[in-house]
Amino acid sequence: MRDAYPSRQGTTAETLPRQDAIAYAPWHAHAPLTREQHAAFERDGFLVLRNLFDAEEVAALKTEMASLLNDPSGLEDETVVREPKQDLVRSIFRIHAQNALFHRLAADGRISRIIRHLLDDDVYVYQSRLNYKPGFGGQEFYWHSDFETWHTEDGLPRMRTISASILLTDNTPLNGPLMLIPGSHRNFIQCRGETPENNYRTSLRKQEIGVPDQHTLTRLADEAGIVPATGKAGTVVLFDCNTLHGSNGNITPDPRSNAFFVYNAMSNQVTEPFAATSPRPHFLAERGSVTAVTPVE
Amino acid sequence: MRDAYPSRQGTTAETLPRQDAIAYAPWHAHAPLTREQHAAFERDGFLVLRNLFDAEEVAALKTEMASLLNDPSGLEDETVVREPKQDLVRSIFRIHAQNALFHRLAADGRISRIIRHLLDDDVYVYQSRLNYKPGFGGQEFYWHSDFETWHTEDGLPRMRTISASILLTDNTPLNGPLMLIPGSHRNFIQCRGETPENNYRTSLRKQEIGVPDQHTLTRLADEAGIVPATGKAGTVVLFDCNTLHGSNGNITPDPRSNAFFVYNAMSNQVTEPFAATSPRPHFLAERGSVTAVTPVE
Repeated sequence: MRDAYPSRQGTTAETLPRQDAIAYAPWHAHAPLTREQHAAFERDGFLVLRNLFDAEEVAALKTEMASLLNDPSGLEDETVVREPKQDLVRSIFRIHAQNALFHRLAADGRISRIIRHLLDDDVYVYQSRLNYKPGFGGQEFYWHSDFETWHTEDGLPRMRTISASILLTDNTPLNGPLMLIPGSHRNFIQCRGETPENNYRTSLRKQEIGVPDQHTLTRLADEAGIVPATGKAGTVVLFDCNTLHGSNGNITPDPRSNAFFVYNAMSNQVTEPFAATSPRPHFLAERGSVTAVTPVE
Repeated sequence: MRDAYPSRQGTTAETLPRQDAIAYAPWHAHAPLTREQHAAFERDGFLVLRNLFDAEEVAALKTEMASLLNDPSGLEDETVVREPKQDLVRSIFRIHAQNALFHRLAADGRISRIIRHLLDDDVYVYQSRLNYKPGFGGQEFYWHSDFETWHTEDGLPRMRTISASILLTDNTPLNGPLMLIPGSHRNFIQCRGETPENNYRTSLRKQEIGVPDQHTLTRLADEAGIVPATGKAGTVVLFDCNTLHGSNGNITPDPRSNAFFVYNAMSNQVTEPFAATSPRPHFLAERGSVTAVTPVE
């Protein structure tokens, strides 16, 4: 079978056109988002839904996060990732499978119904995590397309996958917000190099393979700009699996925390990795017997 | 002689009131800045002068900078500082003494007349540098008061020193702009620890000593906020030597370059360091026979 999205093939770094839909269903009057929102997601590759969760809901999620950060001993060891230069917890993966409140959040109808509509399929949680991103030196995350990594290292076949970031603290331009390049989801940027063995162990801390070249990034940013997904706590950012994004570090005192869920279409489950010797562990990319999300209201 | 601003005395980290004036002369009708600008500098500890240099002037300065970055071989070795993780030039120090165009810029009346007014004295260039701050991973610079370093390591006696940053590229909230804490110049924040031998060799790349504690930074930022000094190329940012400032890293493609001059009152020349065994080299803090700046129009 020909690989629709070859990458990490040595020195080749072409820009290939996307071969998949963005929204898999057209907008209709009963869709769980407006016509404008639907169009914006197709055009930009992301959508910011302001204040989707209220202050009380955010407070409950933050309390739960604080207790997990404070005592991560009940969690699977490998799901707890720390900052490169500090001993602080940066992320807790597979949070939807380890905590009841975040399990419920993953299924929340305000998010999952939109995802199911856009992907026009049942969906499952491909990956989930709680990102603490502390103040006073939280590290940057360099530009990348998630799909490039998930395709090469996990065997995600096609672009039918959407991420949702639920902001748990106010995200300002200064505390290292998610930055996206609008329209970048319309092409697949091949990356140079080859996947090292157990790449995920270092790439979760600092990504060095699977990143687009500077020339291409400069061109895309010059053409379309860079948009920070800022908003108050309770805001939700949805973005396509192939939208280029990254974030600066954060020396401000304010942490930039979020809960993060990746939803994949049931029809788009992983195969073998397209450019790695063995797939990443389950806590990074669910595989095998997966369960469809049932939206809860 | 009692030290008016003791710091790096071990475990003590108190907040002491400033014992010096901010503006040393009152505003008057012939002052080279408006009454509002004068008041803002006193209140905030900084002042942003938008578009002080026009596009043609900026272009000439950028061309000169590019040629220096491209071939730094004509410069004194020790004045060229590189990025911690890349081989790119981060800063060139003592630029006013090594290059005719930047020598003239240091004396430009649009800046130096304001400084002379605010400090009510003849001034000399205490330190100068060209900061390239490249895109795609330019590093952060953690919160600090310049005065704390200059006092402890150079022997700068009192707070009668002002920095001017001339923006050579557009500074946006996303490309690692200078961030300042308004009003922080009104107190002296003691720092813990002691100055290591030759501290400047590492502190120019990453400052770890002479930084305020997180508790104090959080309190100040909560009270007064954090202001990014953004603006188009040609904008000038003036700030008091004791205003807390820092900058985030920059993964965007856009470099965040500036020319940077520190002006000290002639009456405030350095003595012996207040908390270090030997003073930093001349390229970081001019000492000995210094020459007053004559404003050029």
